[in-house]
Amino acid sequence: MSLRAVFFDIDDTLYSSTRFAWRAREQAVAAMCRAGLRVPRERALAELAEVVAEFGSNDDRHYDRLLQRLGPDSHAGAHPALIVMAGVIAYHETKWRELTIPETERRLLADLAAAGLRLGVITAGLRMKQAEKILRLGLDRFLDPDLVFITDQEGIAKTNPKLYLRAAARAGIEPGQAMHVGDHPLHDADTARRAGMIAVLHQGSGKYAHLEGGLEPHHRIDELAELRPILVEYGVDLPG
Amino acid sequence: MSLRAVFFDIDDTLYSSTRFAWRAREQAVAAMCRAGLRVPRERALAELAEVVAEFGSNDDRHYDRLLQRLGPDSHAGAHPALIVMAGVIAYHETKWRELTIPETERRLLADLAAAGLRLGVITAGLRMKQAEKILRLGLDRFLDPDLVFITDQEGIAKTNPKLYLRAAARAGIEPGQAMHVGDHPLHDADTARRAGMIAVLHQGSGKYAHLEGGLEPHHRIDELAELRPILVEYGVDLPG
Repeated sequence: MSLRAVFFDIDDTLYSSTRFAWRAREQAVAAMCRAGLRVPRERALAELAEVVAEFGSNDDRHYDRLLQRLGPDSHAGAHPALIVMAGVIAYHETKWRELTIPETERRLLADLAAAGLRLGVITAGLRMKQAEKILRLGLDRFLDPDLVFITDQEGIAKTNPKLYLRAAARAGIEPGQAMHVGDHPLHDADTARRAGMIAVLHQGSGKYAHLEGGLEPHHRIDELAELRPILVEYGVDLPG
Repeated sequence: MSLRAVFFDIDDTLYSSTRFAWRAREQAVAAMCRAGLRVPRERALAELAEVVAEFGSNDDRHYDRLLQRLGPDSHAGAHPALIVMAGVIAYHETKWRELTIPETERRLLADLAAAGLRLGVITAGLRMKQAEKILRLGLDRFLDPDLVFITDQEGIAKTNPKLYLRAAARAGIEPGQAMHVGDHPLHDADTARRAGMIAVLHQGSGKYAHLEGGLEPHHRIDELAELRPILVEYGVDLPG
């Protein structure tokens, strides 16, 4: 049995979403202050961190909630919708301007595709947000469009092995012929293992250092480049 | 009684939204074809025109609906969410890249502000979409943030004179001391007149050439620069 496909999570696996999101939020708060928010940046950023923690990263009213929490005095004389939108524009511009896959990762993906592996993603999130990341990061050049699985589109969460079994079936292979690389010990590594895939836990962001899955992943990595020797173990013919 | 404030509609008044939206949609369709949509561009664009006409310009699923209508054969082997998002990204990038207020209009706004007039907007649309236009166009430099009225935020449509009366009240003036410039004979000019404002109908886009309001506007213009001599009639001290 040889390896035929590799499925990746996107956030904090193919790129450092946590780091980029906070750089973008710093820029957003700076833009909101320029647009009339009269609160020290550090205080606004601390409050924003609470909003993100309480309402989740896919909430689409982070900056509205920030203004609500800071109260009307924080933006008296300015227009709230303009402050909020100044933040949204700055967030997106920073994120898309700075967002790239480093050359090492890009070469790895190209080498995997050249070695005849089918590449896909299994990712949690909103259909359009995840699709935008794939395109902005230029992942679409390497991915098999048939093998893009976004929980919001499939109606199955990453805690359910069905999602991983579906991915293997779509690729026309046995789960054991597929590797999954993700950063969440429970949602990624655990479920991939339960589905019978080779589970690689990407611990690079440290975001889930406090969590342990129920099953030990087959491999643990801190950066994507570490996949190279692992893949060679599975008989993948990689250069260098 | 002298003129104290000028309120503008945004779309097809402060910039040619109709022209920019279609240029951006052409680029969107081109990007969707590159992302795997296998339909001649002209056919896709004609179908998109029907979608926009049927569901309105604020519908947020134009490209999803386009794919639905073109059927699964139109994008077999590609990923629908990636095609849709390729269109969305191209649309926004084209629009924001090409969107500017021409220098003539910019100078007019600067001159009006310098002459001591308070400048505001009264515009129909979604709060965040209209706020984004104000910021992307750089209108926020000229506008009084207190005098930004977006129907979605106020809960009053432009067909109701209350919106215009509220704007005058917020500016602390009589409606007759305010001018309103907009491109819709019924929603803009008619309602502004009914509220007692000086109503200027901007006919430049030709979009509503088939419509006539119930009341004759005080002035009709084809481009914003024609406001200059009109304002002088009202005693506004403008250079040149």
